[in-house]
Amino acid sequence: MEKYVIALDAMGGDHAPDAMVQGAIGALRQFEDVRIELAGPEDRLKALVASAGEVRSRIGIIPADEVIGMDDSPMLAVRKKIRSSMVQAMLAVREGRAGAMVSAGSTGALLACGMLRLGRIPGIERPALAPVLPGVKGPWMLIDCGANVDCQPKYLVQFGLMGSVYMKSVMGVADPRVGLVNIGTEVEKGNRLAKETYEKMRAQTSYRFCGNCEAREIPSGDFDVVVTDGFDGNIILKYTEGLAGAMMSMLKESLMASAGTKLGALLCKPGFRDFKKKMDYNAYGGAPLLGVEGAVVKAHGSSGGEAVQNAIRQARTMLEGRVVEKIREGLSGLGGEN
Amino acid sequence: MEKYVIALDAMGGDHAPDAMVQGAIGALRQFEDVRIELAGPEDRLKALVASAGEVRSRIGIIPADEVIGMDDSPMLAVRKKIRSSMVQAMLAVREGRAGAMVSAGSTGALLACGMLRLGRIPGIERPALAPVLPGVKGPWMLIDCGANVDCQPKYLVQFGLMGSVYMKSVMGVADPRVGLVNIGTEVEKGNRLAKETYEKMRAQTSYRFCGNCEAREIPSGDFDVVVTDGFDGNIILKYTEGLAGAMMSMLKESLMASAGTKLGALLCKPGFRDFKKKMDYNAYGGAPLLGVEGAVVKAHGSSGGEAVQNAIRQARTMLEGRVVEKIREGLSGLGGEN
Repeated sequence: MEKYVIALDAMGGDHAPDAMVQGAIGALRQFEDVRIELAGPEDRLKALVASAGEVRSRIGIIPADEVIGMDDSPMLAVRKKIRSSMVQAMLAVREGRAGAMVSAGSTGALLACGMLRLGRIPGIERPALAPVLPGVKGPWMLIDCGANVDCQPKYLVQFGLMGSVYMKSVMGVADPRVGLVNIGTEVEKGNRLAKETYEKMRAQTSYRFCGNCEAREIPSGDFDVVVTDGFDGNIILKYTEGLAGAMMSMLKESLMASAGTKLGALLCKPGFRDFKKKMDYNAYGGAPLLGVEGAVVKAHGSSGGEAVQNAIRQARTMLEGRVVEKIREGLSGLGGEN
Repeated sequence: MEKYVIALDAMGGDHAPDAMVQGAIGALRQFEDVRIELAGPEDRLKALVASAGEVRSRIGIIPADEVIGMDDSPMLAVRKKIRSSMVQAMLAVREGRAGAMVSAGSTGALLACGMLRLGRIPGIERPALAPVLPGVKGPWMLIDCGANVDCQPKYLVQFGLMGSVYMKSVMGVADPRVGLVNIGTEVEKGNRLAKETYEKMRAQTSYRFCGNCEAREIPSGDFDVVVTDGFDGNIILKYTEGLAGAMMSMLKESLMASAGTKLGALLCKPGFRDFKKKMDYNAYGGAPLLGVEGAVVKAHGSSGGEAVQNAIRQARTMLEGRVVEKIREGLSGLGGEN
């Protein structure tokens, strides 16, 4: 019955370990084929899972008495804090005791941990962090959103493959359309990186490259996978949050200006709530770290139990969809030197 | 009385020449100290200005019987079409017959025209196109938004100076806060370009550098000048449009879902209108092309008469505020090799 074993960094995130355990129990109730290994302080976790009921038998505990904090230097922490919950959960995947790993801890540390403790899929040069975001016609993937600030064209070509595999295997998009972020749709547009990447993407045969994606078109839904380097991806991701917040506060100001619009806004409340839900990208779980030798999901640091449960479901879908294997298979179509 | 002479590319833009002439007449009525030189086909323009009334005496015509279209190769057009309205208007500035130039024509051609026909301010290596955008606490400048896709740190240091001078002299910001677009606020963050630029910006003494600006903070209003290379600037600019549009269409969908919210949306209409006006960056005129030897304003291609009038007002304020002179003066504080 226990087809999918998922290791959980029970001490990562703002609401750890309570939200982690709560999310784990929720996921175990949802999926009978899942087993969860909680990495963290044994006694504390034992007490928390005592009330798990019938799913208790599918919970294991990996003793880990250190925690990697938000102030820790990522590289250093991952090297030194070998008994931390994050490293221990990652090592469970490395050693085959789990297939996937979920953490809501420090993003920097998780990237370092994935590289150092789990390792890259041979042929993938840079793993990428890739959230799925809401768009007009449905969700789309932004890859890379910050793992790699200085990129070479071949990294981006590989991002395209990883994003395509994910959207197909996990999000159910039949033949994902992959676009390259650029400042124009024409072939000759862009900076050096974009121009060289365009040529290489056009030459590969592993996925459906649909050309340049102007930033204006990103949320339109015409691309399922939007490829960019981690610097620009991070800008796009954070600007999305910033602009959405700024627009909402400016709209609120406009709506509070008169009694009529105030009343209107009151009536609109269910609509605004629905809209907010649509814009909430945490609904799709966390951001997968693609390109490492296992299914790794970065949940948001502020994740509550439900978000953790979503991230675990996502890790399970990555295992079910054989994401790592399919990335490996797709590498041959990228061309010799990519 | 005619302190400020502004050359207008009367044939550039979707609604040329009518909107251009209409904007010119509006501006002349608004400002008694302005004279406008319209570059375009003499007979056609003469007919259009016949009804200008008393401001007719402050309109000159620069005969130009060619037009640079949106499909023309920018560099080639600017070189070959010497009798085009854009080149002729630019040459009026070059030869001192006008102090400023306004065009709603092709952005690429205007950039090439500014570089080739007008020339850079000595010491400025790359002119930049820099729109002023709406933010929560007021307008802010994005520099560069697309003129330079591959940048060196010293270009960005100069962008900071030009943006600071503009926001102070034209937008009336006392001591503009200049930020560098980056993926974190900490000093050591970013890609190679951002890291090197940070050091150089910190070392200069011509303007107030306030550190890294995370994309999330861009619309918050904590920075008056947001510096980035033209590739990222173009992404930010176009993503702003795309995301705003996408959000509004998703919100509309949410509001049209029930009778109650539909009624609410109806009552909210004046508020939505007000909001839309706040978000409309054309209200601040066009985007100045900074770093060339004259005040050059790029108006939006779709500009109507009012937008053209705004752009002319803006060109006038650039002359009044001595933007070019002040950029020249500020160069000494950037350090030897910048």
